[in-house]
Amino acid sequence: MTDKLIIFDTTLRDGEQSPGASMTRDEKLRIARQLERLRVDVIEAGFAASSNGDFEAVKSIADHIRESTVCSLARANDRDISRAAEALKGAARARIHTFIATSALHMEKKLRMSPEQVHEQARLAVRFARNLCADVEFSPEDGYRSDIDFLCRVLETVIAEGATTVNIPDTVGYAVPELYGEFIRTLRERVPNSDKAVWSVHCHNDLGMAVANSLAGVKIGGARQIECTINGLGERAGNCALEEVVMAVRTRRDYFGLELGIDATQIVPASRMVSQTTGFVVQPNKAVVGANAFAHASGIHQDGVLKARDTYEIMRAEDVGWAANKIVLGKLSGRNAFKQRLQELGVEMESEAEVNAAFARFKDLADRKSEIFDEDIIALVGDESVTAEQEHYRLLSLSQRSAIGDRPHAELAFAAGDVEHHAQSDGNGPVDACLKAIESRVKSGAEMLLYSVNAITSGSTESQGEVTVRLQHGGRVVNGVGADPDIVVASAKAYLSALNKLHSKAERVAAQG
Amino acid sequence: MTDKLIIFDTTLRDGEQSPGASMTRDEKLRIARQLERLRVDVIEAGFAASSNGDFEAVKSIADHIRESTVCSLARANDRDISRAAEALKGAARARIHTFIATSALHMEKKLRMSPEQVHEQARLAVRFARNLCADVEFSPEDGYRSDIDFLCRVLETVIAEGATTVNIPDTVGYAVPELYGEFIRTLRERVPNSDKAVWSVHCHNDLGMAVANSLAGVKIGGARQIECTINGLGERAGNCALEEVVMAVRTRRDYFGLELGIDATQIVPASRMVSQTTGFVVQPNKAVVGANAFAHASGIHQDGVLKARDTYEIMRAEDVGWAANKIVLGKLSGRNAFKQRLQELGVEMESEAEVNAAFARFKDLADRKSEIFDEDIIALVGDESVTAEQEHYRLLSLSQRSAIGDRPHAELAFAAGDVEHHAQSDGNGPVDACLKAIESRVKSGAEMLLYSVNAITSGSTESQGEVTVRLQHGGRVVNGVGADPDIVVASAKAYLSALNKLHSKAERVAAQG
Repeated sequence: MTDKLIIFDTTLRDGEQSPGASMTRDEKLRIARQLERLRVDVIEAGFAASSNGDFEAVKSIADHIRESTVCSLARANDRDISRAAEALKGAARARIHTFIATSALHMEKKLRMSPEQVHEQARLAVRFARNLCADVEFSPEDGYRSDIDFLCRVLETVIAEGATTVNIPDTVGYAVPELYGEFIRTLRERVPNSDKAVWSVHCHNDLGMAVANSLAGVKIGGARQIECTINGLGERAGNCALEEVVMAVRTRRDYFGLELGIDATQIVPASRMVSQTTGFVVQPNKAVVGANAFAHASGIHQDGVLKARDTYEIMRAEDVGWAANKIVLGKLSGRNAFKQRLQELGVEMESEAEVNAAFARFKDLADRKSEIFDEDIIALVGDESVTAEQEHYRLLSLSQRSAIGDRPHAELAFAAGDVEHHAQSDGNGPVDACLKAIESRVKSGAEMLLYSVNAITSGSTESQGEVTVRLQHGGRVVNGVGADPDIVVASAKAYLSALNKLHSKAERVAAQG
Repeated sequence: MTDKLIIFDTTLRDGEQSPGASMTRDEKLRIARQLERLRVDVIEAGFAASSNGDFEAVKSIADHIRESTVCSLARANDRDISRAAEALKGAARARIHTFIATSALHMEKKLRMSPEQVHEQARLAVRFARNLCADVEFSPEDGYRSDIDFLCRVLETVIAEGATTVNIPDTVGYAVPELYGEFIRTLRERVPNSDKAVWSVHCHNDLGMAVANSLAGVKIGGARQIECTINGLGERAGNCALEEVVMAVRTRRDYFGLELGIDATQIVPASRMVSQTTGFVVQPNKAVVGANAFAHASGIHQDGVLKARDTYEIMRAEDVGWAANKIVLGKLSGRNAFKQRLQELGVEMESEAEVNAAFARFKDLADRKSEIFDEDIIALVGDESVTAEQEHYRLLSLSQRSAIGDRPHAELAFAAGDVEHHAQSDGNGPVDACLKAIESRVKSGAEMLLYSVNAITSGSTESQGEVTVRLQHGGRVVNGVGADPDIVVASAKAYLSALNKLHSKAERVAAQG
């Protein structure tokens, strides 16, 4: 047993599986680079066999990331495992993570397999994976609700077959810290050769205890890997939040006595990037990364708090990367300054043409907004029309008006492939009018599940508005994000961005929770 | 020791203390009524001595709430305690909650008092409070970081003086479940006559463990009261979330074995009301009350999940009050139907004139929006211009236009007291233009800390947009909220609402965390 705690980030796999959080390959690569700067030990990049898009994303991340281990999920069958190995071929350090459910409920209702069949499939899967990759992780899905005798037999087998990490998920978020900690400890005591593998915890937050459960798994149970996501992103109430678990281990080093490889000053930039990319807001009263998490982080200067900051604050905001927004570029900044700032932000463009397109948009923005912040630049390159991925719909022009007492009205033009559409409509408000105008031509039939706006930088309306639109159609849920100083324009962009995502019909298999 | 777990809600005191979350008396009363429907055992209504506004809010809640105990915070001095008692005079069941810090850091840096002085002041305060009220709670602020021998002596004293509840706050959110649980157990074992008082826990979420810490205080430590807030509202990372702790105790009744008086179906309505009133959004991946907390709650229908819902969900959405938005009223609904719906929603109007004003706004909205939901009605009556409280600024007219390539422009008129102002301005976007136009006349000099928009009901842009604007000026932070189908109009309303709050200069004392 080592005193190093391994941080396994699954933002791009379990986090991305959250309805509405799906990301493009380029978005995933950008986040993977940020996770590498954060120095996470393992990046679970996706589930290669679930779709071609996921395969490409895992491959791209494996090809570009050098410091962190890159991992792909795979069901416990040869085809999934082969696809994972293929996607990971270019990785400096690769891991295959294979799983199969072991709880009575899941085996019966989901897998329709007997325990013996599950046991045998786990054995064969780990054996097959170890022939392709030296680093193999095995997870018994819904492990915490599994029969402990059966679970011990399965874990004994996979360790004997060479699994280097065994992970015990609380798939449904049912655990309580002291019980989960004891569960892990019992497993480690009862499974022969348990010291041959690193033990890992994977907790969900349905009862608000994912962080405490994970830490109990480590402290009481002796696990040495925690699976977690940025902002606690994930299905339902999400996964264990990386930022919370990391800062708990650091702040309470006196108790946990564990070493971490994490560069905590990259936490807030990672949080913002994930939030901007997925459109999943972080609530102000969110630990570590919420706008109010530190009394002074959001520009709030309360006398009593500032007078004796350490009487109320156990962490320092700057240690987790909170910093004032910096004006980085302006109207007069040239292409080189822009390109350099992109590099400093870890944004890599695939081609000079892409840099040029992004720079043109930057100049356009600088004409309308005097101060350009890092967040503006990230929003700019996050824009679908720069990354050009599956860009079918593009906004060409828009004008709108509204007045109290009159019906709001919008006129706009947009391209759909090579065709230019002109449309106009009334609406309940100017945004509604714009989207109705688009819909009058596209006729997507999509249902809007969510519409929200946040100011990108200072919180002021001089900032760009970042609009998130969530659409559902034909069983798929997509988020579109659009940024512009004009909230109505940003809304139209966000809507077209969501339509672009619906337009690219990527289907894929659901994975474990 | 009883098997009943007491739920003490401090949304209106510790939650409201969060910068930007301040509420008016009427807003607090509306939330208190919802807390009563939720059947919380104790409502901490405020800190009566901190300001006249807080006094009035506590008084109003004490006068109207019959089922829950109503509590006021008070520092450990006669003046504070007298004010609390006075405010609580009309309560069916009243509690005075007095506190003083006991950690070395707080005694030295904040109080500048010796431990002996603190000990004596705690004794005198509880004695004084018990002469005014039979139900007295005592909290040693920063108790978890206090010297345990000193803390035991203070707690022994306050129990001897008649404190009926002793509450051990983890003021800075530093605790870990097993340590906090053991801390409470040790205190209960060491303090003489510890069984004469109910033991209570009060945890903050800075390391993401407030819920687990509270439950460890109960299960390991033997506490029987949990202090918590709706949505985990509170300073910094907030307090223990009521909805999480309640659902953990219910879902894991097998382990906790405790009875609760709570009507869980009122949880989601309470969450929405607190979120709408304060403008503090709830993130989608928030346990229990987040839009994604249940796979099907946000209209998301994923095949795999629905096929075997119990394989992934340990709670049922309907048990915590998730329900489809219901169309409740429309264009043809009359005043009586409207008034009846208000009553069903627990909204009480002070006068017929207020009902008339609200009904006029309802008819205006129904002209522009065909389907009126409960959330629309709550937004309608939450509007400052209906409750008429400190209504100095009122929007009279507004027109705006924007187009890609042109500078956005707005013209508007608003009343400031009896004076009518006309103003126009350009801006980076139409919202910016409106706020600049207002600011050109008001010249508040306020800094905008936050601007956000959410759709009130279905998530669609046909819904009303609810805009939150957070302003800071002269050391105060206020939130303004405005709702309208036109997002630009909603923004102007929100800005004027925030200016109204700044206009009413309520100063008050900061309380314990």
